[in-house]
Amino acid sequence: MIVILKKNPDKNQLESLKTWLRDKGLDIHESVGMSQTILGLIGDTTGIDINLLNALDIVEDVKRVQEPYKKCNRKFHPEDTVITVGNTQVGGGNLTLIAGPCAVESEEQICTVAKLVKQSGATMLRGGAFKPRTSPYSFQGLREEGIRLLEIAKEETGLPIVTEIMDASQLPCFKNVDVIQVGARNMQNFELLKALGKTDKPILLKRGLANTYQEFLMSAEYIMAGGNEKVILCERGVRTYETYTRNTLDIALVPSMKILSHLPVIIDPSHAAGRYALVPSISCAAVAAGADGLIIEVHNDPEHALSDGPQSLKPQVFDRLAKKLYAIHEVMKNTEDVL
Amino acid sequence: MIVILKKNPDKNQLESLKTWLRDKGLDIHESVGMSQTILGLIGDTTGIDINLLNALDIVEDVKRVQEPYKKCNRKFHPEDTVITVGNTQVGGGNLTLIAGPCAVESEEQICTVAKLVKQSGATMLRGGAFKPRTSPYSFQGLREEGIRLLEIAKEETGLPIVTEIMDASQLPCFKNVDVIQVGARNMQNFELLKALGKTDKPILLKRGLANTYQEFLMSAEYIMAGGNEKVILCERGVRTYETYTRNTLDIALVPSMKILSHLPVIIDPSHAAGRYALVPSISCAAVAAGADGLIIEVHNDPEHALSDGPQSLKPQVFDRLAKKLYAIHEVMKNTEDVL
Amino acid sequence: MIVILKKNPDKNQLESLKTWLRDKGLDIHESVGMSQTILGLIGDTTGIDINLLNALDIVEDVKRVQEPYKKCNRKFHPEDTVITVGNTQVGGGNLTLIAGPCAVESEEQICTVAKLVKQSGATMLRGGAFKPRTSPYSFQGLREEGIRLLEIAKEETGLPIVTEIMDASQLPCFKNVDVIQVGARNMQNFELLKALGKTDKPILLKRGLANTYQEFLMSAEYIMAGGNEKVILCERGVRTYETYTRNTLDIALVPSMKILSHLPVIIDPSHAAGRYALVPSISCAAVAAGADGLIIEVHNDPEHALSDGPQSLKPQVFDRLAKKLYAIHEVMKNTEDVL
Amino acid sequence: MIVILKKNPDKNQLESLKTWLRDKGLDIHESVGMSQTILGLIGDTTGIDINLLNALDIVEDVKRVQEPYKKCNRKFHPEDTVITVGNTQVGGGNLTLIAGPCAVESEEQICTVAKLVKQSGATMLRGGAFKPRTSPYSFQGLREEGIRLLEIAKEETGLPIVTEIMDASQLPCFKNVDVIQVGARNMQNFELLKALGKTDKPILLKRGLANTYQEFLMSAEYIMAGGNEKVILCERGVRTYETYTRNTLDIALVPSMKILSHLPVIIDPSHAAGRYALVPSISCAAVAAGADGLIIEVHNDPEHALSDGPQSLKPQVFDRLAKKLYAIHEVMKNTEDVL
Repeated sequence: MIVILKKNPDKNQLESLKTWLRDKGLDIHESVGMSQTILGLIGDTTGIDINLLNALDIVEDVKRVQEPYKKCNRKFHPEDTVITVGNTQVGGGNLTLIAGPCAVESEEQICTVAKLVKQSGATMLRGGAFKPRTSPYSFQGLREEGIRLLEIAKEETGLPIVTEIMDASQLPCFKNVDVIQVGARNMQNFELLKALGKTDKPILLKRGLANTYQEFLMSAEYIMAGGNEKVILCERGVRTYETYTRNTLDIALVPSMKILSHLPVIIDPSHAAGRYALVPSISCAAVAAGADGLIIEVHNDPEHALSDGPQSLKPQVFDRLAKKLYAIHEVMKNTEDVL
Repeated sequence: MIVILKKNPDKNQLESLKTWLRDKGLDIHESVGMSQTILGLIGDTTGIDINLLNALDIVEDVKRVQEPYKKCNRKFHPEDTVITVGNTQVGGGNLTLIAGPCAVESEEQICTVAKLVKQSGATMLRGGAFKPRTSPYSFQGLREEGIRLLEIAKEETGLPIVTEIMDASQLPCFKNVDVIQVGARNMQNFELLKALGKTDKPILLKRGLANTYQEFLMSAEYIMAGGNEKVILCERGVRTYETYTRNTLDIALVPSMKILSHLPVIIDPSHAAGRYALVPSISCAAVAAGADGLIIEVHNDPEHALSDGPQSLKPQVFDRLAKKLYAIHEVMKNTEDVL
Repeated sequence: MIVILKKNPDKNQLESLKTWLRDKGLDIHESVGMSQTILGLIGDTTGIDINLLNALDIVEDVKRVQEPYKKCNRKFHPEDTVITVGNTQVGGGNLTLIAGPCAVESEEQICTVAKLVKQSGATMLRGGAFKPRTSPYSFQGLREEGIRLLEIAKEETGLPIVTEIMDASQLPCFKNVDVIQVGARNMQNFELLKALGKTDKPILLKRGLANTYQEFLMSAEYIMAGGNEKVILCERGVRTYETYTRNTLDIALVPSMKILSHLPVIIDPSHAAGRYALVPSISCAAVAAGADGLIIEVHNDPEHALSDGPQSLKPQVFDRLAKKLYAIHEVMKNTEDVL
Repeated sequence: MIVILKKNPDKNQLESLKTWLRDKGLDIHESVGMSQTILGLIGDTTGIDINLLNALDIVEDVKRVQEPYKKCNRKFHPEDTVITVGNTQVGGGNLTLIAGPCAVESEEQICTVAKLVKQSGATMLRGGAFKPRTSPYSFQGLREEGIRLLEIAKEETGLPIVTEIMDASQLPCFKNVDVIQVGARNMQNFELLKALGKTDKPILLKRGLANTYQEFLMSAEYIMAGGNEKVILCERGVRTYETYTRNTLDIALVPSMKILSHLPVIIDPSHAAGRYALVPSISCAAVAAGADGLIIEVHNDPEHALSDGPQSLKPQVFDRLAKKLYAIHEVMKNTEDVL
């Protein structure tokens, strides 16, 4: 951490700052220039509150050199984390395909979709039971009943199940859920993150609509600091001014997270795009970029038109897409590393 | 609501769509053009899921004409909402000044600040007890104890108190709190909003970091739909690419909310700016823009340097600022309306 | 186009509006509802100024149904545009690899890089001669001399050359340039676009830092409306709040442009990422997403350290990357289409 | 400037870096820590290319401590710049009100508006002659003829005139124009900025749609580096995801620019809001925030409906607004300074 002091700092304040920093176990390297004095802080600065330093009268600016996260930091954990879920693994060169409907609607629906996506190569089943909805007047999901239906589909197909939690008080319903999803809007619901840190379930953590890489990793750190190190990072697009797509998928997050962290990274192309016609291209891009997997909305193909979201794929489309994704994954593994 | 159909829509699907819409109580006006057919839906479309329509094979696009919110909509409630808090009122031409430290630290600290800001004209006291922090390693607030100290300061000064809730399970601690604050990161924590809708406390709802006006109002609607209509809207800046300021304060939200809604609107200049030197100008701007009040961070002025945020004002600065704000408020009331 | 009228519009104003619209050759379908009247305008609305309509006292809102662009619109030109440049083609299933240094520095530098990237499979040579720089104190490029050096490299290798123009007055220097690049900051320099519309050179048009898909296509339309239909669209990242990457690459632009337009689309991973370590992954993603090509910064590998940008690849890295890109391109062509 | 080195940097490369830096006239302070070595560069780093340093193999990160702009920097020019235009002054405690129509349409129109706004207290006349339009099919302005009409209005009223330039080749038309406006889309049209730096006209420079404070000041610096120090900064809103307003006005830019620079700052509420009903509140906010003036669209009040923009005020509305603005300006001057 680097502290840039204002011109001619008050001597007493400077001494009390230095004493305080040394008490925190830090070494101080002072560079005195004509117009500026700079303190280089050497040691573990994770616990130092950057805002606190910035608030001091004698400080002009503070710049962090080390990342403020530890447990998810690749520097302290060079090996990729691999997370076992049922008989499948996330990370470590495996391609994880999580597929299923936006919302669980009925036993028939979820079981039909589960069987179809399994046949096409999906490795886990997704489905919304507790649904975060912008409007209080929209369908809020089948809730407990939805999870019960997912459990039936899991029993019938053997696919591990992934579904979203909205509040720590819902945790008892998630006993048989294999991966607990935290939605984008709850990425900084710190009370929820703390509660999940005390469970032993893998957590699929979605990046918030306007959150930085560092904030994303700090939220993973919240879960890990509680003792649960099984975190899967998921990019689902950030909010920009563009309205043709629902969100703007940040593909560079994939290689960036591979540099900064050892956690597996997956992509949600369906929520990012908001249009099914864009989902295949984005999915292919994600695998080529090095993502460990995808979470894709697939709906069943009902007689009656009024049933599903504009971002869901039909099962036969998912089937062709999965073939393409596995083919790209093969090429990526079988060609020489670039860097 | 307007539904734009694709060229040559399937007749059967079109008929089943129309039947479904009529069953929802809507009148349909059909405009058949050379290249496009348009359905105008007349009636209450609040309950229609726009994504559902968009998903239909025969639909090219759907555009909403009516706002999806009702209870907070000025169209259905032309009079300004005025919310009584203790012996003060929010809205209705009053200037509400909420002031206090970022975090409650000690009885002495909170009582000292409370007395000073009251003297300067503050009408409520703020102070963080449950603190949402980006890092799990940062100070998380005094929690229950912090609220107890706020209650002491309230008793000593008579100022109503405002403090943030982070999870519905904390509600029992808020029995003597006058206004419950929902932070920006929880604006779409729908389970929390639902729980607050069942209380009878005024809710100060902060706009999320990247949320639209409509989403903001839909979150207010969540609370109001539960039965609690005492919602105060609070703008605290949105996230942009600019880094000199912590966030970018959206001053146009003030007149926009006055058009769209009847709820009071206040501004948080401290979190928007992130630098105390910008707070006075932004505060003056907010009052001139027609805001019903401000929530400003004011710290006590301690001997020891290491205590407060770079965005907090010293009490004597707040004192001069309050004078200026009341003067601008007078001018705004005593000059002819422009529109 | 749909015009939503305010409640109880003035009859005379409504009649004069309808007359005006009919004079523009449009048919009007009127839907009268309880609370709202809607006009559906049928016909060619490209020339209608949406702001003009919005300004009318009787109008509440106007929504466009048709796109305001014609010449670049796939609806009116279903076949992909293929642009011939020297002995190579852009679009139509070809993979275009444009490579070269950020700035042209010397004959030796540009010729060395040109030969190396050609060997690795590049199909065109890039190099900056006129350099847009944020600071007036930074190196502004070799300008005319830089183009002369590019011409030498072209002669030596046979690679067509791509370089940026900053002002229409520079056009005479571009006589032997094969593709003229318009930088992101000039995407809405309309006087420049008009001038380029009168040339017969292929134009590589970069998307602006904060421009929508529609604005991007409207800028292409400016060039095409002048008579020059050889436009190559290039995404290079948009500005968001994330600072780890220089910009946020919008990968969904690729399939979106393929739906909206018939023009070829290429990706600039170097400027998007701003870090060379991210360039390979993003490049692979772009090809998998269906891009027609890439424009990548490659520097020569000099003795002296102080020479190149943090986003440039070394030639041997580019060599391995090119192999991978051609392999992905093969897979994409040889697997069944998904949609 | 601070250079953070990678762990165990190559000795030879480090020595050659240090020699190079010393040759640039910089002193180097080296802080060697356990895991990191930091170089503090003392001296004038304005000419150092931060990307160049970042590109070095041994460098992990570079952080700028000093601002890269000089001529517009308040540190080197503590007094406010005051710019004389005709018989009025911009900056120095004066309130500048620039008003007029979006586009010049006819002699009658511009002269009528000019007389009305002068009566209401406007100090300059605005009007678009060269119009930047997103669509090539929209009206592009009266161009030279528009400027001729502005000159007539200037003669009739004595108001100095402000109008936009789109390309350096148009400069000869601007001989009698008092203030040359650079639009947001041309803020980084560096060739245009250089050309304007060689004139002696005041330049009203609008901030780009997605440009940082630093980029804004660097563009001012481009003009000033050429010798023309008469630059007026103008905020007109930045692009965010919010669509209710045309852009999001960044009110904090006003006090920020007053800290960073000595140049006058004005606000364009009309383009920021895009809705006339928001213009009065935003204008009042701007004056209360300390802006030196406003540039507001005012249209004449014609019989025929189809003439003006949704963001323009009627003259009688502008008249009431101007009274309010002067009243707020008085309060701001006559109350004690806060900081």
